[in-house]
Amino acid sequence: MPDQIPEQIASMAALAPKADVQDYKYPPKPLAKRDADIRVTYTGVCATDLHMIDDDWGLSRYPLVPGHEVVGHVIAVGSSVENLSVGDVVGLGAQAQACGECEYCKGGIDNFCPNRKFTYFENTVDETGEHVHHGGFSSYLRTDSRFLFKIPAGYHEKYVGPLMCGGLTVAAPLYEYAGQKWDLKGRRVGIVGIGGLGHMAIQFAAKMGAETFAISRSANKMSFCKELGADGFINSSDSEEMAAHAGKFHYLLFCISGGDIDINHYTGLMRPYGTLHFVGIPDKMENFSLMPLLFSRLTLSSSLIGSSNQMHAMLTFAAKNNIKPIIEEFTHKTANKAIQKIREGTIRFRAVLKNDLI
Amino acid sequence: MPDQIPEQIASMAALAPKADVQDYKYPPKPLAKRDADIRVTYTGVCATDLHMIDDDWGLSRYPLVPGHEVVGHVIAVGSSVENLSVGDVVGLGAQAQACGECEYCKGGIDNFCPNRKFTYFENTVDETGEHVHHGGFSSYLRTDSRFLFKIPAGYHEKYVGPLMCGGLTVAAPLYEYAGQKWDLKGRRVGIVGIGGLGHMAIQFAAKMGAETFAISRSANKMSFCKELGADGFINSSDSEEMAAHAGKFHYLLFCISGGDIDINHYTGLMRPYGTLHFVGIPDKMENFSLMPLLFSRLTLSSSLIGSSNQMHAMLTFAAKNNIKPIIEEFTHKTANKAIQKIREGTIRFRAVLKNDLI
Repeated sequence: MPDQIPEQIASMAALAPKADVQDYKYPPKPLAKRDADIRVTYTGVCATDLHMIDDDWGLSRYPLVPGHEVVGHVIAVGSSVENLSVGDVVGLGAQAQACGECEYCKGGIDNFCPNRKFTYFENTVDETGEHVHHGGFSSYLRTDSRFLFKIPAGYHEKYVGPLMCGGLTVAAPLYEYAGQKWDLKGRRVGIVGIGGLGHMAIQFAAKMGAETFAISRSANKMSFCKELGADGFINSSDSEEMAAHAGKFHYLLFCISGGDIDINHYTGLMRPYGTLHFVGIPDKMENFSLMPLLFSRLTLSSSLIGSSNQMHAMLTFAAKNNIKPIIEEFTHKTANKAIQKIREGTIRFRAVLKNDLI
Repeated sequence: MPDQIPEQIASMAALAPKADVQDYKYPPKPLAKRDADIRVTYTGVCATDLHMIDDDWGLSRYPLVPGHEVVGHVIAVGSSVENLSVGDVVGLGAQAQACGECEYCKGGIDNFCPNRKFTYFENTVDETGEHVHHGGFSSYLRTDSRFLFKIPAGYHEKYVGPLMCGGLTVAAPLYEYAGQKWDLKGRRVGIVGIGGLGHMAIQFAAKMGAETFAISRSANKMSFCKELGADGFINSSDSEEMAAHAGKFHYLLFCISGGDIDINHYTGLMRPYGTLHFVGIPDKMENFSLMPLLFSRLTLSSSLIGSSNQMHAMLTFAAKNNIKPIIEEFTHKTANKAIQKIREGTIRFRAVLKNDLI
């Protein structure tokens, strides 16, 4: 008998801010013509999920079913779905919907659609009405097929989740810097901060052909970074080492979250017209000044996630080049253990939950 | 009898920090094979001159002959000068020398040559040795011909000076944003701050075909900005007016110097992938946060002056399109009056000194 979405979807939800997640059941929305039903196989856990569980940004609604790094199997499709078939392995990221008709959607940057819907921040809208959308801590999801992305054959599903948010987040700006292609030959790129995002960024930059340096305060990460593909390593706590690399870099990708960052500590590394791009956001930038940008004609930019086109391109490139996050596996039922390790900062490097709710 | 450089060059110099400029004579350096001698006709006075007179940046040497917005006539050339002839009308800007041989010089960005010499901040170097280089408050200058730029015929010399620093400073980033050409059709550009730089920037942006908005706290500048070519005007003190333009702009050029600026006041104006570029530097950016850059994929950048290639391109474009600074005329001997008006902030908009020292 074919798998089908149940009348009550088993999930793990936080019922109040900062609460542990616990068993929660909810009925699926009505099937819209562009919806697909998926049976979740794995879902990644991202720092954003913790911010949302805790309502750090005042955006959360409870019961809150987190998870925006989802992989699953298509088990049914609506009447207008053309891009997917039952049996496809697909991923869902941080964005669950866009209008498809505005200038941004038509211009290839549907992640800036004014009607974009984040996966579990907002209600999605279709011909069946407006509905709460839940995340990948669910056992099944019914969701707009246009934001389900086929996973290339042979790429193990357990690694997919972290690509859907973290992977896209680090790959999209590198891809844009390269001119919407995967070629950074002749460019010297530094990845600042080697954690959940940075360890994926090293792999992308190196496979794109950049001369790739890992830049970290933790000198003991050197050999690990080289295993990931880094050509060099700079201990950012060592001012002599930093000075030895002055004026060398075309591009720095900052994968640091939280804390205070003094960008003057890094601007000396840059060549004229260099770019300092942030995918992690420091809490403070107390000494921020435009002066080093002025004198070296530097660019400071920041982004989160990427477009649908970039997601397709990233998944293809990652599979082809065997780019994989380093994961620790948990299950949906043991999600609180994963959350705890992320809170403690001891996860190495991305937590993935295997669906054991079915 | 042909004009020739005198044994003692009459000039106006500050003899100590914050002093008025006064009569000062100095001998020319030996003629190097790439030097040209010019008789100064006009020199602009820029806010940077005041910072240097006052030694605000700890870079000044005294006697200090300011002036880096110079126009003059070639009266003699060294043995290797090929690009200039006696009689040519030429301009000299903020940069007096580069090596001509490094990767930046060869790559078309000689303004980033590690051996660049600002016009009167540093000594220039050639086969005759190392020499103090003075600015356009001189009656004559002997200087490296490679940083003398021919002024297109028919462009009145009195307007040239402010183009050589301020004009280049505002035009170069617009030209770069357009992809090293003078075409901004289809782009909505805002010029923030309408003073010495901003009133030139409006003209460049409008003549490049951008839909150009002046953005100012001074609502009474509206009709003036429209005369300069602005298509629209936004009173930045009026939050309703700012909100009405939310999400509209591809590019903002900040021509504000000093003060505290809250960029969150402006990021709401931007389209995704928009650029906020600073050619004036605020004293403080206390509320600076990457968050608005992250959510709208914005770029923050800053620059000063431009390359030799950009200077040539800018002068040609300005002459062809009749882009002119609005100037108040003084003379070298009355330079202190010009300086006083700039200090008071009552200059409208650029001070130019006519050489009356000969």
